[in-house]
Amino acid sequence: MDRLQRQIAFLVEIDKLKTILRRNHIADGSRVENDAEHSWHFAMAALVLSELAIAEIDLLKVLKMALIHDIVEVDAGDTFIYDEAAKAGQAEREMRAAERLFGLLPEDQAETIRGLWDEFEERRTPEALYARAIDRLAAILLNYASEGKTWRQHGISKAQLLAINQPIALGSPALWDYVRELIEEAARRGYVDH
Amino acid sequence: MDRLQRQIAFLVEIDKLKTILRRNHIADGSRVENDAEHSWHFAMAALVLSELAIAEIDLLKVLKMALIHDIVEVDAGDTFIYDEAAKAGQAEREMRAAERLFGLLPEDQAETIRGLWDEFEERRTPEALYARAIDRLAAILLNYASEGKTWRQHGISKAQLLAINQPIALGSPALWDYVRELIEEAARRGYVDH
Repeated sequence: MDRLQRQIAFLVEIDKLKTILRRNHIADGSRVENDAEHSWHFAMAALVLSELAIAEIDLLKVLKMALIHDIVEVDAGDTFIYDEAAKAGQAEREMRAAERLFGLLPEDQAETIRGLWDEFEERRTPEALYARAIDRLAAILLNYASEGKTWRQHGISKAQLLAINQPIALGSPALWDYVRELIEEAARRGYVDH
Repeated sequence: MDRLQRQIAFLVEIDKLKTILRRNHIADGSRVENDAEHSWHFAMAALVLSELAIAEIDLLKVLKMALIHDIVEVDAGDTFIYDEAAKAGQAEREMRAAERLFGLLPEDQAETIRGLWDEFEERRTPEALYARAIDRLAAILLNYASEGKTWRQHGISKAQLLAINQPIALGSPALWDYVRELIEEAARRGYVDH
């Protein structure tokens, strides 16, 4: 019973992910996205596009990564990928958050989920590389759909987009080809600075 | 390329799930929950509690069900589980929605996802029964955490809660034991009418 109590306490605690806001807008541009709904959309994209991963992947592992990848932001908050200053303390903040949040679970589950999160962060396995590619792709699709709303708000340039998102190629060369074209089109349409 | 275009169009279209509101509040009671973030929370609960499923389950299948189970609500809207009148046209509305939305995908993927959604709806396999148990559990946890906010708003009684949620036992007897106690405690605390 103590085991179940811990599992439930974890599930109620991570509900806070619904209140952690990203810089990105949802596709219709009406509001910014929260981490929980982003995690769902990321998981759906990983599911639908798995045939484009760079190597044979374990899809169950990728979906778990998508579901848990942002949980640390309950404590650490969201860090905008184009904000180099904010990225400074990020790793340490997130490490502490992982200890506390995953530590709410029974020990065996805490270890398993922590291992998955570490694997995602270390970007070495095909699953982690593919998952990270999809995480970036999801943000780009929404920005493009909302006519570059977040890119324009933060004065992001085409060169920044190409540089920051280049690691998509490590997880899926096919999706990187697609994204490069989408970024060119976004620039032509004025969704992002030239 | 046409294949990828269809996959991307589907992913952008289902982003609308973030704007479909449920009756339930998030755990802190500050606002109602949307379908996309609910789907994430449902998937997380399915992941963490899988050891309590009534039988050996294919967790990948359950996670896929959690991710896709509400997509039809982009067209059909959310139906409150305690609203018997609204439930009348629900099946037909959702069937039409499934045709259109899953039909945006390449044919093979549309069929696979439609099959998963049908399986979830038909509640026969261990995966579907467990997934449906977790779907209900997630709503109950949030209602309890928010001191019965939605239950009180809609005048739900303890007897209704017990009757409507009884199918949790089909997917997980252990979770049904837990939920019954939680409902009793909710009644004692005045979170739900006696």
